[in-house]
Amino acid sequence: MIEPVELMRLAIKKAIEGIDAGQSPFGCTIARGDDVLAISHNTVVATTDITAHAEINALRLGCKTTGQIHLEGCIVATTCEPCPMCMAALHWARVETVYFGASIADADAAGFNELQVPAADVLKIGGSKVALVGDVLSAECRDLFKRWLERSDRIVY
Amino acid sequence: MIEPVELMRLAIKKAIEGIDAGQSPFGCTIARGDDVLAISHNTVVATTDITAHAEINALRLGCKTTGQIHLEGCIVATTCEPCPMCMAALHWARVETVYFGASIADADAAGFNELQVPAADVLKIGGSKVALVGDVLSAECRDLFKRWLERSDRIVY
Repeated sequence: MIEPVELMRLAIKKAIEGIDAGQSPFGCTIARGDDVLAISHNTVVATTDITAHAEINALRLGCKTTGQIHLEGCIVATTCEPCPMCMAALHWARVETVYFGASIADADAAGFNELQVPAADVLKIGGSKVALVGDVLSAECRDLFKRWLERSDRIVY
Repeated sequence: MIEPVELMRLAIKKAIEGIDAGQSPFGCTIARGDDVLAISHNTVVATTDITAHAEINALRLGCKTTGQIHLEGCIVATTCEPCPMCMAALHWARVETVYFGASIADADAAGFNELQVPAADVLKIGGSKVALVGDVLSAECRDLFKRWLERSDRIVY
């Protein structure tokens, strides 16, 4: 089984690729056992699609890769705490565990129009079975915002 | 300006089209002034995409139609109270007002694996400016679940 930290490194690498291509600083990966099913970065700007967060892109790719709408037994690594859109999407997909690095507060500080709802609250209030683990390579994940903030062509939303 | 009830009728009509094509019973429309920017039904099953709820499809289409990631000044009619994924997506898109018919409890009763988080709570806890109005043609919207439950080929998720 691929280790969560290893999966997070792939997500960080993909997020950097996205930043360098003018996208916002988020990456997400999905794996089942040894198989990496999806590696995606945010493409809101590139595809003019406000829903194209890294997690949504990864879920769509994971569904396509497996031919299934449910990704049971999968683990997910995402460079930032999922917003309620992404956390609920991960619930719908029935993934097993979601590992994240930076926090919603970090994304908010970088200028994003975040809903102030912790991912853990979405799961707890909603009665979800999805497990959530934060603070995975969080310093490296926070550095993604720094890298992005250095770009003069960045677009915030 | 197109009236919310009129916009909801278009969403209901689209949802029926979806049900008759084997999709789950949800429809969503987006308008700005007199212009209807998007009319979509849920395509989770058709496209093997767990994120393809009616509202997400409508937002993606609305972004494509306008060439913009933000849909400010838009009103949205959706046949069912948005789940947290869809409610947060509508927040990200900065729509003005969301009108809905049936409730999350109705979708839950029909068998969907709903997170038990009212859309109003996502907005209130999150500090969103999006306005939300329920109970619009709710009887007609609840009838969509009845129509869908009569189909032997229905897929719940």
